[in-house]
Parts: sequence; structure tokens; C-alpha cells
Amino acid sequence: MSGRGRFITLEGGEGTGKSTQARRLAQALRRRGLSVVETREPGGSPGAELLRAVLLEAPAECWDAMSEALILSAARRDHLATTIRPALARGDWVVCDRFADSTLAYQGFGHGVDPATLEQLYDLAVGPFGPDLTLVLDLDPQVGLERAKARGAETRFEHLDIGYHHRVHMGFIDIVAREPERCAMISAAGDEETVEGRILAAVEARMAEWSADADAVEGADGPVAD
Amino acid sequence: MSGRGRFITLEGGEGTGKSTQARRLAQALRRRGLSVVETREPGGSPGAELLRAVLLEAPAECWDAMSEALILSAARRDHLATTIRPALARGDWVVCDRFADSTLAYQGFGHGVDPATLEQLYDLAVGPFGPDLTLVLDLDPQVGLERAKARGAETRFEHLDIGYHHRVHMGFIDIVAREPERCAMISAAGDEETVEGRILAAVEARMAEWSADADAVEGADGPVAD
Repeated sequence: MSGRGRFITLEGGEGTGKSTQARRLAQALRRRGLSVVETREPGGSPGAELLRAVLLEAPAECWDAMSEALILSAARRDHLATTIRPALARGDWVVCDRFADSTLAYQGFGHGVDPATLEQLYDLAVGPFGPDLTLVLDLDPQVGLERAKARGAETRFEHLDIGYHHRVHMGFIDIVAREPERCAMISAAGDEETVEGRILAAVEARMAEWSADADAVEGADGPVAD
Repeated sequence: MSGRGRFITLEGGEGTGKSTQARRLAQALRRRGLSVVETREPGGSPGAELLRAVLLEAPAECWDAMSEALILSAARRDHLATTIRPALARGDWVVCDRFADSTLAYQGFGHGVDPATLEQLYDLAVGPFGPDLTLVLDLDPQVGLERAKARGAETRFEHLDIGYHHRVHMGFIDIVAREPERCAMISAAGDEETVEGRILAAVEARMAEWSADADAVEGADGPVAD
């Protein structure tokens, strides 16, 4: 296993169980002896949590999707500077409930902001940095919304029509298809233990690759005898 | 005088009297029979005012300058969509206390965010739209800070060292130098009436140009006899 910390994000639509699985994944990594920071977006740092509160408490129609993307980008920049990068610099692992893919899926695919615009915005706000692994929890949007309602969750997206949630779902599928190296699609069907099993299998497969890469780099860069 | 409304912004450092002069200018335009919307940044629409509160109430070191620029851009986009563009579409004039030049002067020149980055961000958040006239109130930064302190004003920039305020001041000078067509530099030295006189002279000169342009366009596009 590589000695450096990794940045793992969980993504998916409403009711896919991201938050529960993020917690379970962090616990599983800690059982392996790793130091893990659990965080979330929007939020994850004092400044970003202020912006999260503004986003969640304001009426849903308060801003258009591009303004939301700008606010989310400000929060993300602060979250990275204050929480994520310092954790990785210490060698900790970071497990994050939602990240930039949610902006692309919700504001982009869902609300129609041009993905190229969102990409430029990411470059301006964040620059060349991204997750080592993104686990996309996949579930029929109708099932997800029913799950979310059953547990009494209220989000600012739940009032939107089912067509919106289908576009978000297709957005996540598109993201995984475009970046198979970074992303793993995980079925969110079944109970928590079943989904956790799928996630741990995906994470362990990736950890084995990172470990092999690290060994290869170590071999290449290791001390050389004159 | 052109029949359509115009978008006039007032800019300048701390203590230059922008807010007072914006109010006086709006009153002067109303005395000419114009319908005038007075607004300000950050803020000027319900969503943007929420972001203003977050910016002003958070500790000064809560976000870095680029995160602030992102938040200001979200607020600006909303302000334009909700307040400024609808007013101009009705034929109203808009007088705005601070706009995008403040972001360039404070976050750019003051805090060191690359002006090219701020320009890209403006293009993403706003697109091809800007003020018809920008009045930059010019005053020695030390004098401005003393004025601001004397009236008991507290801003999130006043605690910064004088070098910061000098960079902001140079930023405004640079903006006027680069865009002399749009901007007019107005000395903020002297009492309110004196400064108002300078502003009204500059606005009237610009109104005469707009009127001449409008007449020329009307002549070119007017009814043509067969």
C-alpha cells in the first residue's frame, strides 16, 4: 500500500446512500490503520459551511444554476485550502461526501449549464487537482427519491421534477464513462452492508494498483549504486 | 438625450464618498425627469445581499482573495439578472455603488489575484456586458482612510496595511488608464457639493455624447423616403 494519503470522493443522486457509505468507508480504512478525514461538500471548512448554509437556507429559486456553481466553486476552493490539502499533506486519507462531479451533474446536466463552462470554472477555482478515486453510487432516480423521502430527508433538489433527476443520473453515468481511470460505478441497490461490500472491493482493487505504482516508482527512483 | 437607460457605476477606495455621491447623482438624474434605480455591490438583489452578509460578517481571513472573487461573481451575476438588466430593459437608469472594477482593484491589485484570471471569471459569470460609464473617485488612500474612520465606518478592508490601500488606489488608476472611453477619473478632494459638481459635469458630457450617438443612429436608421 502506498504511504501517501489518497483523496476519495463519493457521488450520486438523492437517496443513493452516499453519506452513510462515506462514513462506513472511513471506518473500514481506519480499521486498516489509516488516518482518515471525513468531510463533505458543499461545506467541509468554516468558510465553505457558511456558503452551504446560504445555499441550503435560501429559497430554491434564489440563484440561477451558474450562480450556484460560482458559490460552490468558492466553497470548494476554501474546502481544499483549509481541509483537504492540509490533510493530504499530513499523509491522511480524505473521504469526501460529494465533490466537483456533483456540480457537473446537478448544475450542468440537471440545470443545463454548459459543461465546458463548468470545466473552465473548476480550472480557475481549483486548478490541476482532483480526487484519486471517485465512487459513483448508481440507483434508479425514482427509487432514490423514494428512499430519501422515506428517511425524511429534505434537500433543495427533491422538489424538482423527475426529469431533472434523470438528467442528473445520466450526468453521473457520463462522468464515469469519460473518466474510467478515476471513477468506479457502484450499484446502490440492496442494503447498506451489500453496498459497502461493493465499495470496499472497488477501493481495495484501486489500493492494490496504487501500491504497485508506488513500488514501481520506488524501484525507479530508489538509491542507485555508482 | 438618448431614450434608453444607462448603467453608471461609482468606484474608488475607502472614504472616497462613493455612496454619498451615488445618492446625489441619482437625485440629480431624477431632477432631469429620469427614472433611476439606485443599487450597490456586493448586494443589490435578495440573493446577492445574502452573499454580502456572508462576506461582511465572516472573519476577514475566512476566505482567500480568489474565493472572495468567486463569491462576488455569483453575487454580481444575480444582481445583474434580478435588478440591473430588468431596470435597463424598462428604460430606467441604474446608479450602482461599486461593481466589477472593485473586484479587480481589491482582490486583483490589492491581494494579488491575476487580473487575467479575474477577467476570465467575469466572462464566465457575466459575459459581454458592462457599465456605460464608470466614475472613479480618486483620493489619497491615507486621507480616505482617515475620512472613513472619522465617520465611524468599519469595512473589512480598513484593518489592512496602508500598502494594500495604495495598491488598490493604483489599481483604480490603471483601470481608468486602460478604459478611458468607459471611465472618468473624478477628484474626491473637497466637500460633497464640490465633488458632486465634478461628477455632474462628467455625466453631462457623457450624456451629450450618447445623445449625439443616438441622433446619428436615428438618422441612419430613420424612415427613408422612397
